[in-house]
Amino acid sequence: MGEEMGDAMDEKLLTVDDFEEAARHLLPRATYSYIRAGADEERALRANREAFSAYELWYRVLVDVASPSTATTVLGRHVSLPILISPAGYQRLAHADGEIATARGAARAATIFTLSTVSTVSLEDVAAASDGAKWFQLYVYKDRGLTQWLVERAERAGYEALVLTVDLPVVGRRLADERHGFHLPPGMTIANLEGRAAMPEDFEGSLLTAYFSAHLDPSVTWKDVAWLRSITHLPVILKGIVRPDDASRAVDEGVEAIVVSNHGGRQLDTAPASIHALAEVAEAVDGRCELLMDGGICCGNDVLTALALGARAVMVGRAVLWGLAVGGEEGVIAVLDLLAGELRRAMVLAGCPDVASASRDLVRRRSS
Amino acid sequence: MGEEMGDAMDEKLLTVDDFEEAARHLLPRATYSYIRAGADEERALRANREAFSAYELWYRVLVDVASPSTATTVLGRHVSLPILISPAGYQRLAHADGEIATARGAARAATIFTLSTVSTVSLEDVAAASDGAKWFQLYVYKDRGLTQWLVERAERAGYEALVLTVDLPVVGRRLADERHGFHLPPGMTIANLEGRAAMPEDFEGSLLTAYFSAHLDPSVTWKDVAWLRSITHLPVILKGIVRPDDASRAVDEGVEAIVVSNHGGRQLDTAPASIHALAEVAEAVDGRCELLMDGGICCGNDVLTALALGARAVMVGRAVLWGLAVGGEEGVIAVLDLLAGELRRAMVLAGCPDVASASRDLVRRRSS
Amino acid sequence: MGEEMGDAMDEKLLTVDDFEEAARHLLPRATYSYIRAGADEERALRANREAFSAYELWYRVLVDVASPSTATTVLGRHVSLPILISPAGYQRLAHADGEIATARGAARAATIFTLSTVSTVSLEDVAAASDGAKWFQLYVYKDRGLTQWLVERAERAGYEALVLTVDLPVVGRRLADERHGFHLPPGMTIANLEGRAAMPEDFEGSLLTAYFSAHLDPSVTWKDVAWLRSITHLPVILKGIVRPDDASRAVDEGVEAIVVSNHGGRQLDTAPASIHALAEVAEAVDGRCELLMDGGICCGNDVLTALALGARAVMVGRAVLWGLAVGGEEGVIAVLDLLAGELRRAMVLAGCPDVASASRDLVRRRSS
Amino acid sequence: MGEEMGDAMDEKLLTVDDFEEAARHLLPRATYSYIRAGADEERALRANREAFSAYELWYRVLVDVASPSTATTVLGRHVSLPILISPAGYQRLAHADGEIATARGAARAATIFTLSTVSTVSLEDVAAASDGAKWFQLYVYKDRGLTQWLVERAERAGYEALVLTVDLPVVGRRLADERHGFHLPPGMTIANLEGRAAMPEDFEGSLLTAYFSAHLDPSVTWKDVAWLRSITHLPVILKGIVRPDDASRAVDEGVEAIVVSNHGGRQLDTAPASIHALAEVAEAVDGRCELLMDGGICCGNDVLTALALGARAVMVGRAVLWGLAVGGEEGVIAVLDLLAGELRRAMVLAGCPDVASASRDLVRRRSS
Repeated sequence: MGEEMGDAMDEKLLTVDDFEEAARHLLPRATYSYIRAGADEERALRANREAFSAYELWYRVLVDVASPSTATTVLGRHVSLPILISPAGYQRLAHADGEIATARGAARAATIFTLSTVSTVSLEDVAAASDGAKWFQLYVYKDRGLTQWLVERAERAGYEALVLTVDLPVVGRRLADERHGFHLPPGMTIANLEGRAAMPEDFEGSLLTAYFSAHLDPSVTWKDVAWLRSITHLPVILKGIVRPDDASRAVDEGVEAIVVSNHGGRQLDTAPASIHALAEVAEAVDGRCELLMDGGICCGNDVLTALALGARAVMVGRAVLWGLAVGGEEGVIAVLDLLAGELRRAMVLAGCPDVASASRDLVRRRSS
Repeated sequence: MGEEMGDAMDEKLLTVDDFEEAARHLLPRATYSYIRAGADEERALRANREAFSAYELWYRVLVDVASPSTATTVLGRHVSLPILISPAGYQRLAHADGEIATARGAARAATIFTLSTVSTVSLEDVAAASDGAKWFQLYVYKDRGLTQWLVERAERAGYEALVLTVDLPVVGRRLADERHGFHLPPGMTIANLEGRAAMPEDFEGSLLTAYFSAHLDPSVTWKDVAWLRSITHLPVILKGIVRPDDASRAVDEGVEAIVVSNHGGRQLDTAPASIHALAEVAEAVDGRCELLMDGGICCGNDVLTALALGARAVMVGRAVLWGLAVGGEEGVIAVLDLLAGELRRAMVLAGCPDVASASRDLVRRRSS
Repeated sequence: MGEEMGDAMDEKLLTVDDFEEAARHLLPRATYSYIRAGADEERALRANREAFSAYELWYRVLVDVASPSTATTVLGRHVSLPILISPAGYQRLAHADGEIATARGAARAATIFTLSTVSTVSLEDVAAASDGAKWFQLYVYKDRGLTQWLVERAERAGYEALVLTVDLPVVGRRLADERHGFHLPPGMTIANLEGRAAMPEDFEGSLLTAYFSAHLDPSVTWKDVAWLRSITHLPVILKGIVRPDDASRAVDEGVEAIVVSNHGGRQLDTAPASIHALAEVAEAVDGRCELLMDGGICCGNDVLTALALGARAVMVGRAVLWGLAVGGEEGVIAVLDLLAGELRRAMVLAGCPDVASASRDLVRRRSS
Repeated sequence: MGEEMGDAMDEKLLTVDDFEEAARHLLPRATYSYIRAGADEERALRANREAFSAYELWYRVLVDVASPSTATTVLGRHVSLPILISPAGYQRLAHADGEIATARGAARAATIFTLSTVSTVSLEDVAAASDGAKWFQLYVYKDRGLTQWLVERAERAGYEALVLTVDLPVVGRRLADERHGFHLPPGMTIANLEGRAAMPEDFEGSLLTAYFSAHLDPSVTWKDVAWLRSITHLPVILKGIVRPDDASRAVDEGVEAIVVSNHGGRQLDTAPASIHALAEVAEAVDGRCELLMDGGICCGNDVLTALALGARAVMVGRAVLWGLAVGGEEGVIAVLDLLAGELRRAMVLAGCPDVASASRDLVRRRSS
């Protein structure tokens, strides 16, 4: 794959869509399809992206934008750009270096990498390979001891926050995975749980669905959030909230941050678009905790829109995976550089010398 | 047809659309077209389906959904899922076993089957073949004696409710039926009326239009509803209402339930979409009688949307007919299992452990 | 052309679109294009038709519709259906019998025919050929004597009202006519003005534009309406109004009726859709004069929508011309019968036994 | 190129789109693409044009429009039509005569030509070639002395106003230019700055981006507007404002006019459509300064819409460049004549004898 990737990187990849197109050519069809897919009829997947077209930025003029800065902090941690890496499982499917390449790319871009529970490299190996800022994404296993073991390992390995996914009591149905029987190739495992949560041997359709249904707990409630906070000193971030009332509850429960997200359109197909949900959650939370969002981000203009609607930063998943597929660590860097450049240009053109100036009055629903 | 159907069932039929596609290949073109068609320009047919895309479900998180239940009651009768079978005529066109297969499938799925007046198997034969819960759909014949005779037979045969269709004073025009001359093949009859309401011998265009125009009464009013209630001890359900004021009137007249429906887009082409009408009728009725709806339901997400907008249950017609066409009784079961599975997943993902928790605040107009 | 037309009539022509398609095959391209075209980018043409899709009819149930009647009166004249014939010029382009066939067809259908000033048969010949109800459409010529002469002839010939076109100070630009050089074939003339308003000999682009620009008066104002009323005992109808304030002014000036119309999308391309304008004009006029509308009517559902929005009747132009092209007088009758049947069915399905019951609450903006 | 252009002019070029199509055939692909392109995903480019479809003109009838006049004044200067020429760089790419042809065409049409700072003919040469009314568009160079030198030369050469572009702190990314490496052919230069602001020798992607980034100042603020006003007696016009608050500030700062514009969709891709922005800016400015707009104008109907929404005149860029490409000075005249004729007809059809009668009540959001 190496040489091909080199070739792909030589071409002019000017947009995230260019990276996706290059990745589509490099990846096996089932893998490309696994990464790209949304649930069911892909209403939420489309909504996530189309929703950005519903906003316009009423840019300011005659502002000094000679030295634009995309730097900010998230939970006190300095990042060079308000674009973090979403947790995404099975990254060795996209590139042999898997999560290590992504983590290193994020570190070099001075932003935060989030490792999925279902990574194909263990959390310890990722930590050993990259000293950048890292968060650990957590699924709650039926076996709470196993869950706690994951938390303790993440703490020990230097992860700086726990991102609890709350929109996956069961796995959404992605039709391509069901049709083609999504599975992991020989030698690829869910590295963090090896020997502790066995792969189902006999299943129909998607391995993912079978595995999650065997091990993850759909009875998780706010009590488990409290339990999680009681067993860790790390900040707890809830990922997958769309309702203003759920967001307010999360604040009341003491969580440090919320990721407004519908899981990239991969779970409930009738979910609202993430960016619309962000607008409402931001109003309800009113600054009481930090807000992140993901879903549908495909360019710097989208990032600026999200900032103006109240996000402290966005998270990107698929965009980075396309980069990973195309060029491993270098591909990840290339995508982050691309997005950073686009964001910087958008900020300059919108009259925003820094992220704080992306105020709410900058953005309006497109008027047609 | 039997073997072919077996083959079709072997394929992965993952969605109702898959079943429709398989049925389209198996059925004669005129039959497929008869089942699929809407009236005139098919505005209402499209509206029914597109309207569901206008809603989004603002799902709740951190609710215990380990044991989701789709069970409910309709008019006091327990059903395992809030998905009932709409009345649909001439089912032996879709499969040799016709209404018997559908009734048995519904019984095995523990839901309610509704038999059409214009069935190709008599109401007695259906009752003899299936002991599941059954309703009888009634058209009012010009000959009121004949109408009463139907009611008495339905009572005797154990049907549990009468579903009076009120949106068909005449048959809507479905262009394909007119162009191709829709008719019943030799040996197939309107079994409930054999010898009592003769088929027109000489007609142009659709048999259906000719038959209905010869025998059904377009002068039916609320007085006939009162008359019907006076001659039966069965609950009376009105099917085909879209106006809030008509729904309120129905409650005042003492009907036990209403099916909000535009007859699957097959009658007035400028009718509002059923799901939009449901939202308004639910507000007007405000719990004073049970509400059902049909029209445009093609997946579990749609069912959950309807429940959240105020339906006690939905009814499905075409979806089940595609299953019937593909695999007879087994096909009916397969479609109901599919929808039940989709509904269960949608409920879990939306944070609804049971149907009662599908509250109004879950659903909103899609904001773009 | 005769035999071909017979053939075309033998086919199943079930919709107005079927007639248009048949006419398209029979007519020379330039003629078809002249009839079909809208101005400029055809925004108004499309808007006229698409606007009907923006309305839905919230039908009533359980109304006695056994004897539906489409009969009504317009300016006191009984018509069997609320569908009148719009003025349209040059009808011998569509069929050798031209305006005579259309007038006779309208008479047989017991509705009102409107003869255009720029007809290819003289008003006297039309009157001699058909004793049905007829109106005369008037353009104001720069030569007021000539205008008065037309009025007097219309009165003498028994026309029952004057329809003054007010939306054509100049001719809108229809690109196909300009490109292909629209002209009348040898032997075809503007019959009412022969010898009195010469055809321009030397012109570029459309003959229509050249002729109108040579003879019609773009300085016509409300004073001319008063003048017209002073020289005739016939009722005066203004055709081409879209603004509520213009409509109110027309009422104040004493006109007997208004045709809400944007000239079939053939004049100002940015005009509002006729049916939307009707809704607003009806509110402003509030019953103080009779309202007609034309533009975009293509089926009975559209007619019922217009009635519910406040029209006493609609006028159809192109639909009738397609019938004329396909079968002369018989074709005109066929189209009127088709529309009447569609309207009757729509009324029955909507719970309207007569046109008076098409009340405002029947119609709403489509809610999506 | 000369003969070909003659041929193209012989064809019937009836719309601006016809001119674009002809130009597309004549121009090198990179040049056509440079002129046509919008930034990034071209959302703003499409929005500019589609936004006009969102408006409709509720035309008045029975107004005397026998002598329509498109004449008006802009900053006191009489123009025969409210359509001015937008500044556009590098016009020798479109035609060998470049800015001279455009300036002469504008002069013959009795309207105002605006010369871009980055013209391929020097401001002095343009002034020598055409004695029509001319404005000079100004970019602020990092070297303020150089900026002042441009201003003084413009004054000396008889330019009547300075149009300060405020929406280009950096150049927006137009993908085609980046992919194909936009550059100037040998012998073509930025004539006004020859010897003073060197072309970058070594650059990737677009020359434009490289040049602007090397020389233009992204730190320009309102203080620089004040400075500019202090060094010139010419009226200062700000071009590129979309926000009502920025427009109000501009009035407070004493600028003589504002061009509401998003730079033809070539800068911030999420910018609002110019015509929507105009509607809001007009309300905020409330007559305190003259308003112009550009972006998306493709026909006379669009011009009338802009006038009704509050523009004193519009500016056109691409439309005129297509004319320039097709026929040099004659092509420019042809496009202006075309637009003037379309505007005159639109005014007549809308009941506007002069531009002052294009009042706000004429225009409404299209109601569907």
